[in-house]
Amino acid sequence: MCAKPFFTVALSEIILSLQNSRVKELVKLRESPRRRRELSLFPIEGLREIEVGIDAERIFTEVYYCPSFFRERGEEILLHRFKETDVELVELGKDAFAKSAFRENPEGLIALAKIFDLQPSRLSLGSHPLVLVLDEVEKPGNLGAVLRSAEAFGVDAVLLSDAVVDFFNPNVIRSSQGLSLRMPVAVGSKEEVLAFIRAHKLSICGSSSKNAVPLWEGNFTDGVAILLGSEREGLGSFWMENQDESLVIPMSGSADSLNLSVSAACFLSEAARQRRGQ
Amino acid sequence: MCAKPFFTVALSEIILSLQNSRVKELVKLRESPRRRRELSLFPIEGLREIEVGIDAERIFTEVYYCPSFFRERGEEILLHRFKETDVELVELGKDAFAKSAFRENPEGLIALAKIFDLQPSRLSLGSHPLVLVLDEVEKPGNLGAVLRSAEAFGVDAVLLSDAVVDFFNPNVIRSSQGLSLRMPVAVGSKEEVLAFIRAHKLSICGSSSKNAVPLWEGNFTDGVAILLGSEREGLGSFWMENQDESLVIPMSGSADSLNLSVSAACFLSEAARQRRGQ
Repeated sequence: MCAKPFFTVALSEIILSLQNSRVKELVKLRESPRRRRELSLFPIEGLREIEVGIDAERIFTEVYYCPSFFRERGEEILLHRFKETDVELVELGKDAFAKSAFRENPEGLIALAKIFDLQPSRLSLGSHPLVLVLDEVEKPGNLGAVLRSAEAFGVDAVLLSDAVVDFFNPNVIRSSQGLSLRMPVAVGSKEEVLAFIRAHKLSICGSSSKNAVPLWEGNFTDGVAILLGSEREGLGSFWMENQDESLVIPMSGSADSLNLSVSAACFLSEAARQRRGQ
Repeated sequence: MCAKPFFTVALSEIILSLQNSRVKELVKLRESPRRRRELSLFPIEGLREIEVGIDAERIFTEVYYCPSFFRERGEEILLHRFKETDVELVELGKDAFAKSAFRENPEGLIALAKIFDLQPSRLSLGSHPLVLVLDEVEKPGNLGAVLRSAEAFGVDAVLLSDAVVDFFNPNVIRSSQGLSLRMPVAVGSKEEVLAFIRAHKLSICGSSSKNAVPLWEGNFTDGVAILLGSEREGLGSFWMENQDESLVIPMSGSADSLNLSVSAACFLSEAARQRRGQ
């Protein structure tokens, strides 16, 4: 490659105004699930997260950047990669970027990507799959943390039934460290998720807070869906009636209940123990 | 009790100024570990947290309150309890309180309590104790989350060796939901913590990220100290040389590493499994 300056073409001027329509649009896309659905776009913020999105073959339309926030960890190389594509590059001034960003200490990069398919039918499972189901998950930070645990334990798929949180919420991306962009995740109603589980002949091990046998008495060696209820309500009647086993993480203390990602890790760690050597 | 009005004595006037010396002191105590040590005081914010502190027989000196932030969940009853003691009650205006508070959405109550003894020698352990050791823990939010997991699994004591974070950091109290005020916790150098472990004849199961056997091959049935390294560095040479077993949480994914409270829960859940029926 010739030693051409970083940007040879005249880019549109730097956007400085906080009232600029693109800045306002970035704020809307960050804050409004409805706007994300309308445009079928969502923001991915941060160098690492955008790189994960590229590796996962997400489709990008625009990248907003502000060199004042760069930390010299490869931001310019990333921009250069985008420059050779159809993706539009737009520079923002410092205040305009800070207004558009989700993070308090932004890294100077926000990409817009196309919303991708989250239907259960897109998932393909191997034999004896280990699947995690979250019912009515509410908090984006919890969902992100669960995705980290799920990835660490090599879960084959994560299914969200009647999710309250929007999967494309920026904090899901942030708290999963970008894993939400590449993991096999699907979203559906309780009935759709149950249909998927039944079609794949998985047994359902539901997490309970009482009146249940300890989790290590559950059977995780065959194809299984580990089912965790919402942060506030636990499992409702639909799943109580459709689960095959009801298991509890034995707790001796007086703590209210474990954090969702902690509960998930306890189940997944036990599943890993039972599946060792398989 | 006679139906006397809530405050019969003339309280000192409401503090409105953000420049008031008490407001400045509250900010210092919130932000500076050094200031907390100098005065041997630390702030406890929030109704539930103060109640935990009372139940744990912590010694209070002052309570700052601002009724504008009350949520009618028992704040006045709590103030009434303090009124019958030597604890000084001080009302703050809304801005003054907001400046003094740690939380973004404060509950209108900040108590000052005396720093309590955290020496290992104050801990007494039963037979076959389950102890958790955190080496060089840095983040108050992580420490608080670990304390929640530890309480849930009925850990007998939590020991912090060469802690980077100050145990009286407001976010430790917040993220542990006040559990830090009542749990059996001790703080010391690596050598002091090791001496405590040896004196109680505990075996040391250290968490590793590589070159180790899976955690379920560890032995948690006798008195044991589960040892977790710092968020960034893992275990250094001191603990590598002094641990009896090196165990790893088997991970198949590419996640960097599990969150500290998730790792702790995996170990504690396995210990609970091995100790069932004991």
